[in-house]
Amino acid sequence: MEQDTKIDRVTLQTGDFGCDYLQNRIVGEFMLARHIGILVESADDAVVVLRAPLAPNANYKGTAFGGSLYSLAVLTGWAWVTRYLAAHGFSADAVIQESRVRFLAPVQGELRASTVAPPKAQIEKFRKMLQRAGRGRIGLRVEIHYDQTLATLFEGVFAAAMRR
Amino acid sequence: MEQDTKIDRVTLQTGDFGCDYLQNRIVGEFMLARHIGILVESADDAVVVLRAPLAPNANYKGTAFGGSLYSLAVLTGWAWVTRYLAAHGFSADAVIQESRVRFLAPVQGELRASTVAPPKAQIEKFRKMLQRAGRGRIGLRVEIHYDQTLATLFEGVFAAAMRR
Repeated sequence: MEQDTKIDRVTLQTGDFGCDYLQNRIVGEFMLARHIGILVESADDAVVVLRAPLAPNANYKGTAFGGSLYSLAVLTGWAWVTRYLAAHGFSADAVIQESRVRFLAPVQGELRASTVAPPKAQIEKFRKMLQRAGRGRIGLRVEIHYDQTLATLFEGVFAAAMRR
Repeated sequence: MEQDTKIDRVTLQTGDFGCDYLQNRIVGEFMLARHIGILVESADDAVVVLRAPLAPNANYKGTAFGGSLYSLAVLTGWAWVTRYLAAHGFSADAVIQESRVRFLAPVQGELRASTVAPPKAQIEKFRKMLQRAGRGRIGLRVEIHYDQTLATLFEGVFAAAMRR
């Protein structure tokens, strides 16, 4: 029954770390997020979705600027990690360490990014590293779709470290 | 003497496509650049340098946000390509296609990015592709140093296409 108890506890905790929690942290902690117009659309155990309007992020062609797409993608990944840390009681901060981004098609309207939880084995490894060493790394894939097409593919590695 | 004439013509033209030209294009064409506070510090045949103040780009730790560093780096690369196109009489636009970024150390003050012209053989290949096919790709490396340390390394591929 230990496993069941653990799941219940986590489920309970994650209820406190949804959209409002992430929205407040992002707007409060990243100056540029306000200008990008970041909005946390949804955040649960499986998926985190962030979006932003096109207007403040447009380039001269009326499509989304690569720097805006990158910012939205990295904050989506950061939001997943930050939510995981908070929901699991880790007093830790996450930062982006390295990333690869491919711009496959233009985004001509609202920017909408989503990330799906990594495989359980990777999450478990991340959790154990945090517990044992006080720091851990985890890879996330963030996708930005526009008009039913994968427009931007972000693959990043985030590093988390326990606060001293 | 054909070579000399060509060099003179290019030198003359590039005189018109320096800091002011790039500053106007960046601020005029990328909405977010104003909020980042992008300033073109220098732009010549060999090197392009862009910078931005920390305050509007800071995160909760008082260091530069990854999305801001990425935006500054991608605009530095874009500026090099855009300047090259304009100075060589190509009526073409450049976009970022893919990139890899590594965040090696935090930036705790002004963000300053520089890119050095790629090897001549790569520039020549890019020029020939534009002339023959109306489009070309070129790889650029952009570095952001802080406190004499390489803090952010951006490697990106830019695609240029002639305007129709």
